[in-house]
Amino acid sequence: MNRQELINNIKNKKSFLCVGLDTDIKKIPQHLLAADEPVFEFNKAIIDATAPFTVAYKPNVAFYECSGVSGWVALEKTVNYIKSNYPDIFIIADAKRGDIGNTSKMYARCFFEGLDVDALTVAPYMGEDSVTPFLDYQGKWVILLGLTSNKGSHDFQLTKDSDGTPLFETVMRKALEWGNNDNLMFVVGATQGRMFEEVRRIVPGSFLLVPGVGAQGGSLAEVAEYGMNDDCGLLVNSSRGIIYASQGDDFAMVAGRKAEELQKEMEMLLRNKKII
Amino acid sequence: MNRQELINNIKNKKSFLCVGLDTDIKKIPQHLLAADEPVFEFNKAIIDATAPFTVAYKPNVAFYECSGVSGWVALEKTVNYIKSNYPDIFIIADAKRGDIGNTSKMYARCFFEGLDVDALTVAPYMGEDSVTPFLDYQGKWVILLGLTSNKGSHDFQLTKDSDGTPLFETVMRKALEWGNNDNLMFVVGATQGRMFEEVRRIVPGSFLLVPGVGAQGGSLAEVAEYGMNDDCGLLVNSSRGIIYASQGDDFAMVAGRKAEELQKEMEMLLRNKKII
Repeated sequence: MNRQELINNIKNKKSFLCVGLDTDIKKIPQHLLAADEPVFEFNKAIIDATAPFTVAYKPNVAFYECSGVSGWVALEKTVNYIKSNYPDIFIIADAKRGDIGNTSKMYARCFFEGLDVDALTVAPYMGEDSVTPFLDYQGKWVILLGLTSNKGSHDFQLTKDSDGTPLFETVMRKALEWGNNDNLMFVVGATQGRMFEEVRRIVPGSFLLVPGVGAQGGSLAEVAEYGMNDDCGLLVNSSRGIIYASQGDDFAMVAGRKAEELQKEMEMLLRNKKII
Repeated sequence: MNRQELINNIKNKKSFLCVGLDTDIKKIPQHLLAADEPVFEFNKAIIDATAPFTVAYKPNVAFYECSGVSGWVALEKTVNYIKSNYPDIFIIADAKRGDIGNTSKMYARCFFEGLDVDALTVAPYMGEDSVTPFLDYQGKWVILLGLTSNKGSHDFQLTKDSDGTPLFETVMRKALEWGNNDNLMFVVGATQGRMFEEVRRIVPGSFLLVPGVGAQGGSLAEVAEYGMNDDCGLLVNSSRGIIYASQGDDFAMVAGRKAEELQKEMEMLLRNKKII
């Protein structure tokens, strides 16, 4: 999916919501465990309930990989289900890959040819040749870790070099020498609040994938206030706050309602910024 | 496997060789493609031929993941084959994982409970809570990216902070506040040559996993000269230089011979340092 298509979808749906499919078999409702493929059944129900309010899905690959082969089957089925039934929805494999060029090429083949998702999260520590193999695919996106939502983001990402530039800024500036606003986004955690002003100074035109709203404590209004640009430029993710909002038989309906609440808030924020 | 067992294996086998199982279905000998499970058949033959000279195997997870479900089957079978037939050999899943704590826990479950390997390579960018979930497993190891072997290692890892400390040093020092020499190793690329002196000043007692000998151009003698400590403290990896040394019917025999050549050189280096 290209940038203009993504922006059009945001405007049409009046939403910049990404639903994180962090599906943990230990947390899904009991009654689904009798199904042949409980994780896929759970995802299908969540997707059908939330799709009207959502522009992106983000399966977190760890949650599938941890079940080995059956997990990969569930991941493939989930991606195919979204592509078949909701072809306008952007799919992000949240996998935080990155290795020497030769190996990153294999990961790119895995996610962009095999699984055929729209975007992959990538870790920057190994530098240029670990990132560029993912940028060679037309219509696909790298979402590079910039300033993450977790406590450990303070350990290295904010380390300042001799010019006073924090590492995350160096990462973003360098990465924009390798890619551009049509194939490269950045992860910036919602917990970083006012730091979005700083981030927008560095990457004014980039899309940002923003985790950390909800369970991790970030504020949607604050993210929009400081992080939105003229194209919206945001995909705000919520995982646990939506998919585990109820653990009863009504889990899908409640997830849909939570997604709709966020969509309504996003619609208002998009109107405030005159994007719709 | 604990540290002392690993050291004993190195002394018994007179080797600190790790064979990288970067098995690319596009590169294995033609005649294997007729087998039901060509990747596993290739690995079995390579393992049987190289095991006498090897203290560790390192399947590179990208090469399996890129085949989706069938790749995960091949990876699981390969790990189980090593564990059943060569229980003294240390198994490293080279996956370079790392995410927020909640997600790193899932990756730890995947690799240390599901696949049950001895060690996992981990990327440090997201800091403490992305690394510590992997350190909670008795007898298992984190191998954290320090100073890697690729060209892109210069992009961020050598960035100096306001005190003149390069990022890789900050990463190593911080990580040794979270783990210790019994559950934490570091990746330091063989291509870094004289930098091993500097690395040993920072982490004198840590085991180092050293990729980049062979195809990537690093020198084994130089690594041993500057990187070996009193316990050896090195696992030197060779992948392409061994497993693709011949692409004919004799691939396993030639791989075994290449592994033996490296083992002989390692034996001499261990004797020079009076470790055996």
